[in-house]
Amino acid sequence: MFDFQIAATSGAARTGTLTLPHGTVETPVFMPVGTQGTVRALSPTDLKAVGASMVLANTYHLHVRPGEDIVSQLGGLHRFMAWDRPLLTDSGGFQVFSLAGFRRVDDDGVEFQSHVDGARRTLTPERATEIQWTLGADIAMAFDHVAPGQADEATSRDALERTLRWLERCARRHEELTNGLTDQPPNRQTLWPILQGGTHRTLREEGLRRVREMGSWTGVAIGGLSVGEPKPKMLEVLELLEPRLPGPLPRYLMGVGFPEDLVAAVERGVDLFDCVAPTRNGRNGSAFTAEGQVNIRNAAFRADDAPLDATCDCETCTSYSRGYLRHLFVAEELLGLRLLSLHNVRYLIRLAEAMRAAIRKGNGALAAWADDWRRRYTQPGIA
Amino acid sequence: MFDFQIAATSGAARTGTLTLPHGTVETPVFMPVGTQGTVRALSPTDLKAVGASMVLANTYHLHVRPGEDIVSQLGGLHRFMAWDRPLLTDSGGFQVFSLAGFRRVDDDGVEFQSHVDGARRTLTPERATEIQWTLGADIAMAFDHVAPGQADEATSRDALERTLRWLERCARRHEELTNGLTDQPPNRQTLWPILQGGTHRTLREEGLRRVREMGSWTGVAIGGLSVGEPKPKMLEVLELLEPRLPGPLPRYLMGVGFPEDLVAAVERGVDLFDCVAPTRNGRNGSAFTAEGQVNIRNAAFRADDAPLDATCDCETCTSYSRGYLRHLFVAEELLGLRLLSLHNVRYLIRLAEAMRAAIRKGNGALAAWADDWRRRYTQPGIA
Repeated sequence: MFDFQIAATSGAARTGTLTLPHGTVETPVFMPVGTQGTVRALSPTDLKAVGASMVLANTYHLHVRPGEDIVSQLGGLHRFMAWDRPLLTDSGGFQVFSLAGFRRVDDDGVEFQSHVDGARRTLTPERATEIQWTLGADIAMAFDHVAPGQADEATSRDALERTLRWLERCARRHEELTNGLTDQPPNRQTLWPILQGGTHRTLREEGLRRVREMGSWTGVAIGGLSVGEPKPKMLEVLELLEPRLPGPLPRYLMGVGFPEDLVAAVERGVDLFDCVAPTRNGRNGSAFTAEGQVNIRNAAFRADDAPLDATCDCETCTSYSRGYLRHLFVAEELLGLRLLSLHNVRYLIRLAEAMRAAIRKGNGALAAWADDWRRRYTQPGIA
Repeated sequence: MFDFQIAATSGAARTGTLTLPHGTVETPVFMPVGTQGTVRALSPTDLKAVGASMVLANTYHLHVRPGEDIVSQLGGLHRFMAWDRPLLTDSGGFQVFSLAGFRRVDDDGVEFQSHVDGARRTLTPERATEIQWTLGADIAMAFDHVAPGQADEATSRDALERTLRWLERCARRHEELTNGLTDQPPNRQTLWPILQGGTHRTLREEGLRRVREMGSWTGVAIGGLSVGEPKPKMLEVLELLEPRLPGPLPRYLMGVGFPEDLVAAVERGVDLFDCVAPTRNGRNGSAFTAEGQVNIRNAAFRADDAPLDATCDCETCTSYSRGYLRHLFVAEELLGLRLLSLHNVRYLIRLAEAMRAAIRKGNGALAAWADDWRRRYTQPGIA
């Protein structure tokens, strides 16, 4: 039920098939983010039309509103959001450390203030695991302590040690849930650990070693990156981890990212990604295109009859002109938010498709493809 | 190219087929409103999925932004908004009299202040006709002077006389455009007159008579209703006009309406309708259902697994629970605006479908259907 088969490799890069209770996922894969149980401005029908095979939802947000019990009463997360393909929920760790106003961390867990109603709530490793079980995604994430990207070694050490202690508690509770030892109904869900350690080599090496010793996982997530550290640092950590990661396990780089980050991380052996960038940028009028990022509000597009991205096959690019899309944004029409979000998600899914094809081709095809892609994407843009 | 065939009647009610350059339309028909060249929150694909056959766009809004020349450079209104079925543009008269801050009316036309940038602009009958020709909808409307619903007879008389003088000028310019006597490119478009006269019987009778004397039209619009007059007054005017309207011409009741208004007006011989209510209400969380209007934010729906309207076949009702739709509104998610708009438009289109079927059935089937529909729709609602 939880299986990963690698079909081809190219250097550190791999392409494979991840099998989950709600279907199979070809990797590398980009997961659109459905923060509150909906990928902003898009419907499940839209997501299928652009080839999304897996979506992420946020445990923190769904716990705060409408609450996991409501989601459960409405048939669980898949039925709730009408998404019948694989789902992953994060653990709430990242949101608790980035969103909440007040928070108090101790070894038991985190007390925080809801950003919705200001109420004090507590998340512990056990609660985060139970909430995710109740939501019912295919993959649940361990509750982790995320330190800022610029954290010094002592701070990162502290967060790492806590994350490891919490991982043990998450794994224990998840096993109890899986084995029917609680009063929760049965489910088909796997739990993935999150690697922490900031940008500190020794912590990253030690953290990975200790996580591997703690269990035989079905996948592993790389956390604590893309949280404010310099971009080269992120790539360094990926390069450090790559040869030490168990080859047969799928690797998920959390919260990444922009097109250039996806390409660089796939070249460094990453299999799964999630990021709000395509939808958030889309709502701001910013589009990923073959020639780089474009802001559709640019006056140059006023009477431009060309598609947003002539190389793209999405509904936005095959139906509408840049001039019309610009009009939608200038006139503050809702359809604009949707059409650019749709295109940006399609862009990242096509990017992953292109990398899968290049990896399968072998003989350095990925490197050649990536060089060519970077040359076009990073050229001086039109907007 | 502009043809209307009545297939069946039931009392004053009729069902027929309106043939236009961009396709045929079964009447009675509800036209969703695409104010700025987009039906708010919906795409053309959505509109086709719910069975929309014809859409209205606002000349005033498109003239002010992006401007009819831009629309023309982007291929005309059909191509601009990616809607290949029939389109109707209003003349801008209603907007000039309801939206603009400053306005000065004289016999030449109306000087007004754009609600977008405050710039002074002038619309005359000739300009309104030219702008609509440039936009290129299947049906253009004559430029009219709309008086408030509570206007006294002198005010309504003044507006009526001006509307009749302007109609002559619109018709003359439209004929010049049709006959290629201007420097505008050719087009396939018909012009419909708008009846005014407020709630004053003598003005309505005289107005209709004089409009009929002015030309052989392909359709006629009833304006100046649903603008603040009491609802019974509107129905009185419809009843007054109905036997005096030329039977073979399609009749368009502008800016109407809500479900109960559609039913009452079809019973009084109206064929076409437009209104922002389904999309505006939808964005406010208010839904038309078989049991009346429902506000989806109601806390009673928190864990309600039932569809919004169990009798409806739209994507919203077949895919999502009331509990999920409520969550989308409470969490201020864009998808909620779209899903309720989609349902409400589908509701009015199904309503028109049901009336067409009842009219075809004959033998008082429409009256029986309408009684039954009203009994269910106006029962004490659940929200």
